[in-house]
Amino acid sequence: LKAVIVTIGDEILTGHIVDTNAAWLAARLSEIGFEVIKKISIGDDREAIMATLKEMTGVTSLVLITGGLGPTPDDVTRKALFDFFESTPVEDPAVLRQVQSFMEKRGRPLTDLNRKQALVAHNCKVIPNNIGTAPGMWFEKRGTIFVAMPGVPFEMQEMFNSYLQGMLKEHFALPSFIVRQVLLTGIGESFLAEEIKQWEKNLPPSIHLSYLPSPGMITLRLTARDENRDALEQEVESQLRKLQTLIPSYIYGYDNDTLEAVVGRMLWEHGKTLSLAESCTGGAIGRMIVNVPGASRYFKGGVIAYSNEIKINVLGVPESVLGNFGAVSRETVCAMAEGVRKLFDTDYAVAVSGIAGPEGGTEEKPVGTVWIAVTSKEETTAEKFSFGDDDRQRNITKSAIAALNLLRKSIQII
Amino acid sequence: LKAVIVTIGDEILTGHIVDTNAAWLAARLSEIGFEVIKKISIGDDREAIMATLKEMTGVTSLVLITGGLGPTPDDVTRKALFDFFESTPVEDPAVLRQVQSFMEKRGRPLTDLNRKQALVAHNCKVIPNNIGTAPGMWFEKRGTIFVAMPGVPFEMQEMFNSYLQGMLKEHFALPSFIVRQVLLTGIGESFLAEEIKQWEKNLPPSIHLSYLPSPGMITLRLTARDENRDALEQEVESQLRKLQTLIPSYIYGYDNDTLEAVVGRMLWEHGKTLSLAESCTGGAIGRMIVNVPGASRYFKGGVIAYSNEIKINVLGVPESVLGNFGAVSRETVCAMAEGVRKLFDTDYAVAVSGIAGPEGGTEEKPVGTVWIAVTSKEETTAEKFSFGDDDRQRNITKSAIAALNLLRKSIQII
Repeated sequence: LKAVIVTIGDEILTGHIVDTNAAWLAARLSEIGFEVIKKISIGDDREAIMATLKEMTGVTSLVLITGGLGPTPDDVTRKALFDFFESTPVEDPAVLRQVQSFMEKRGRPLTDLNRKQALVAHNCKVIPNNIGTAPGMWFEKRGTIFVAMPGVPFEMQEMFNSYLQGMLKEHFALPSFIVRQVLLTGIGESFLAEEIKQWEKNLPPSIHLSYLPSPGMITLRLTARDENRDALEQEVESQLRKLQTLIPSYIYGYDNDTLEAVVGRMLWEHGKTLSLAESCTGGAIGRMIVNVPGASRYFKGGVIAYSNEIKINVLGVPESVLGNFGAVSRETVCAMAEGVRKLFDTDYAVAVSGIAGPEGGTEEKPVGTVWIAVTSKEETTAEKFSFGDDDRQRNITKSAIAALNLLRKSIQII
Repeated sequence: LKAVIVTIGDEILTGHIVDTNAAWLAARLSEIGFEVIKKISIGDDREAIMATLKEMTGVTSLVLITGGLGPTPDDVTRKALFDFFESTPVEDPAVLRQVQSFMEKRGRPLTDLNRKQALVAHNCKVIPNNIGTAPGMWFEKRGTIFVAMPGVPFEMQEMFNSYLQGMLKEHFALPSFIVRQVLLTGIGESFLAEEIKQWEKNLPPSIHLSYLPSPGMITLRLTARDENRDALEQEVESQLRKLQTLIPSYIYGYDNDTLEAVVGRMLWEHGKTLSLAESCTGGAIGRMIVNVPGASRYFKGGVIAYSNEIKINVLGVPESVLGNFGAVSRETVCAMAEGVRKLFDTDYAVAVSGIAGPEGGTEEKPVGTVWIAVTSKEETTAEKFSFGDDDRQRNITKSAIAALNLLRKSIQII
């Protein structure tokens, strides 16, 4: 079952808006079993719309169209649809009532433009718009279903959820579909590809794998499709177990997990508290931790010790340690972590000190050199990272992720 | 000059990621004088890629392609390009050096997969990737220019800004254009539209205005295009002066300024230092401040006082203040700001305490209620904000922005 998404609007082509409708619809269609083979964006241009509709007719099972259904002159989609499907516009009483009630609720008069919204194609199924004025229209031509929906995201989403999803499931006999995500950190994309080469090669054809990298992280996305849902679920689970055995230390979570939520859950479950001593990250680790609602149950806070003066005066790092080893050293981050753990009276503390760049690098400690320490009542460990990145923002982001990951591994041991 | 943008990747078609590359490229192409007539997204699928390239050949002036240039097996774009343009893959020494240096900086060995990145088409112009491993490639076929770039947004953007923009200007002899950005905070989009309605109405047709809102901020983008560059520059400058007079207090900067860089420059110029006391923002203000290279010249650090215990024990907020007024109050943020300024011995200090949500709101202090204080040797001022947002992340971001803006206004007075 192949589907194409067509989004219409000049504002998409000038880059003034990011086309979130296409992504939203693609996700929903994929979930219910369609394979989206193409997304197309075109302007409010009759010729381009007609040509696109023609190109898809008889070739694909479903074409979802959004945008350009409004009543103003620059909304040319409806007119083009009427021409393409050789439709006669007829006033739909139910749509007219909805438009009237919509305007009444807002204390506005019903204009001729509003009234035009009730004109639908005589040869379409009308799809109600419960929260706006432009109805959706469902057409069929040479075996292809065309559905036109409004471009306002919340109207389109409501229409899809309330009506279209059910109509599609009924019209097409939809196969089973599973999407799973494996979330990794601490390994680069090409190294990961090497490590799991054999596993990837042995994946059955029903499972498709993609790599989704972001700074400091990689998501492996498994998309599986098959007639037999139970067998498919078992196959996916079995593949995930194999992967888990292959690269256990890089996997921090699955599906909608986040690193900060995983670490937070571990702290909460073990009844442990956390404090931070951040130098080069400047608050980035704390910012991630408070992403999680309820973080106050385990996170007491931290010290942003950006200057050495604060490392000494607030965290109690000995001047001699800074003098002998420098701010970016095992000795300094360990002293920072131990200092903040004492000051904040927490079970765990994490400290980071590094050179985010673009200035401040030396031959011995180039930009991207970062020391991270984790301390608990039992022990203090530290690790050196070489992110080797010229970009300050990415070095900061990668440092914060690496710090949370080191903490995750430390808690995992207990 | 017509352009088509083609984004390639299964993750786009499954809706797993929102295709921001297409919007970014559409905006940049529109600015420099191209008319983007279509955006197409297809999967990592050789047939679909070949068919799309064929469809565009000789029909449009420019085709920009992103995605699928990586070294992993699911990146099929490069292979398809080689086939379509009948190219022989040759190892490019400059690209190989960049890949080697990229891996070296990260202390990693050069794998065969890495090495493959240096294989480029013999009949393309190579476009360097300064911050990644996959180079861009520029092809020409029957009068159409095809440019393939990596799909990682920051690599693609860097490549466009550093190289492609200039190459396009030269190849297509593009007309003059000016883009200026006015950066605002502290006002909502619809209020801003009201305030500048008359000014907007009187803009000459050569100047196009767009509103680009993001959480807590709005960018007004003026795009001007004309044959006579001098006259155009004068016109734009004159319009910017009018706007500055109309809404001076909301404008924090222009063009590539950032709020944190503007505030940092003010602190540095006045020879002042800064510390922070962050509660609900959890480090978000610090994270913004250290975005700016050289922030250590004025930023000493801060205390993330997420729990009341830390507000009392580290910042010295009296228990009676917390008891009588609560953590989210004028009295508490003022005490937090004064406490951290003393502890860190800085000229200025900023403190934030609020309810980020989704839990913790009351009738009197609903989610989105945030108190911010700024203190200096001379005085302490505080302001209450009601962001009225149900979204935790947006409340945190808006709080951090409002805090920096309040600091900006305080320093402006001296």
